[in-house]
Amino acid sequence: MSLKVAIQGIKGSNHHQVAKDFYGDDIDLLECLSFDAIIDHLSNGKADKGIMAIENSIAGSIIPNYNLVYHNNMHIIGEHYLSIHHNLMVLKGNSLENIKEVHSHPMALLQCKEFFKKHPGIKLVEDVDTAETAKRIQDKKLQHIAAIAPKMAAELYDLEIIAPEIQTIKNNATRFIILKKQNKVLPEEEINKASLRFITDHKRGSLATVLNVMSDCNLSLTKIQSLPVIETPWKYAFFVDVTFDMYGHFKKAKSLLEIMAEDFRVLGEYKNALR
Amino acid sequence: MSLKVAIQGIKGSNHHQVAKDFYGDDIDLLECLSFDAIIDHLSNGKADKGIMAIENSIAGSIIPNYNLVYHNNMHIIGEHYLSIHHNLMVLKGNSLENIKEVHSHPMALLQCKEFFKKHPGIKLVEDVDTAETAKRIQDKKLQHIAAIAPKMAAELYDLEIIAPEIQTIKNNATRFIILKKQNKVLPEEEINKASLRFITDHKRGSLATVLNVMSDCNLSLTKIQSLPVIETPWKYAFFVDVTFDMYGHFKKAKSLLEIMAEDFRVLGEYKNALR
Repeated sequence: MSLKVAIQGIKGSNHHQVAKDFYGDDIDLLECLSFDAIIDHLSNGKADKGIMAIENSIAGSIIPNYNLVYHNNMHIIGEHYLSIHHNLMVLKGNSLENIKEVHSHPMALLQCKEFFKKHPGIKLVEDVDTAETAKRIQDKKLQHIAAIAPKMAAELYDLEIIAPEIQTIKNNATRFIILKKQNKVLPEEEINKASLRFITDHKRGSLATVLNVMSDCNLSLTKIQSLPVIETPWKYAFFVDVTFDMYGHFKKAKSLLEIMAEDFRVLGEYKNALR
Repeated sequence: MSLKVAIQGIKGSNHHQVAKDFYGDDIDLLECLSFDAIIDHLSNGKADKGIMAIENSIAGSIIPNYNLVYHNNMHIIGEHYLSIHHNLMVLKGNSLENIKEVHSHPMALLQCKEFFKKHPGIKLVEDVDTAETAKRIQDKKLQHIAAIAPKMAAELYDLEIIAPEIQTIKNNATRFIILKKQNKVLPEEEINKASLRFITDHKRGSLATVLNVMSDCNLSLTKIQSLPVIETPWKYAFFVDVTFDMYGHFKKAKSLLEIMAEDFRVLGEYKNALR
């Protein structure tokens, strides 16, 4: 039986590409229409693994996803970086002049704003997924609608790319995390990155003290994201990613942070990905 | 001539309430349909002051606004906290049974989700502003549409609140910043808070080192927000708020941070607000 992997969006989406890159082709894909649905599938055992975008090099953290991982006790077992390419695609033989509307994810529309400024006759319509529009154009043979989607969507749904790489900023990458309900325990020598969550108070130096412990233990900070603690207005939780050369260093930091930081939890220990 | 204050939204919005709380009634309100428009009005001199929501105790930072302030060289000259109250309002004499749709800002709709789960017949429609729907209901005498808006909007547009405080989480506050094109130089003894922006690299301990300087200079960290530097993927800028008892302490920290941190800039020095 193949591995059941829950992704946001449908076949041909960026999440699908990450599933392919990470687990190969022999997987059973569970298409989800929301990030919440990924968590549901993992919680009720319908999916073995989940793939979730967590931050983008232009837009920053996808903040609600941090809370989804934390509040549902999910484990991060890996990460993956994907370069994002936005391609304008239509039914084969169709041309830009015929297009009245382009449907895509709000983020994709935003990142291609400059392109569409040059084509003011095309109306931008927000949709939940990039690949879903591509599929719909083919299913319903839509002549006046274009999709902005990854190349894979054009191949899967037999569409023609009439304008490749239409995003304004070319340096566009998204970091995805691989989720699992139960923790996957890797051999210590393979682990060189961890995602942590803790709370500090507003006392002078309390965050600095925590970061000092990390630094003293030879951990490098690659990401810090503060999020409000909903029950206590203006109190912040911190989501932090650290990398290290030796698991022993991390182990030492963990034992100190468990004592020092409030509500300290390791969300995942994994092998870092190339970016 | 009264002070010209640019706000997001129209009269009766939460931004209007903040303008009133901060500057009183004798102001000339400039209604803006986007946060960008506030910046434009400040840049071209049409507005003297701008009011902008920057973080919410439930949803967290309004990330694009951090970049708007930074990239347009705006100065933060003050802050204000507002408790957010979502009230369901309709034409006077109308009742909940008549309502087919509720129009409001996506954030307001989201925060009242539990209420509308009990009224599945009412369709939720996203709008750019809370108060704008209230105005439209009155202008066009709309019988089947309700607005979720602040109390002030019901008073201004002569509507009836049929369900007050329908937000799920009652502890809901938003922090607003007051913006100006030129820096407003306050007497040093009145300043006890500052907003800073800098970049650090991923080297071990570099953020900790900056925070240590702050702590050593007796500054308290009240907020930290990391944001990607768009030109350099996976490099982060930090937006930090600090409070202090003596301006001299802050002055010392500033002179050190100017040397230590990359691209260090003070976005504003001001008097903290009560929350």
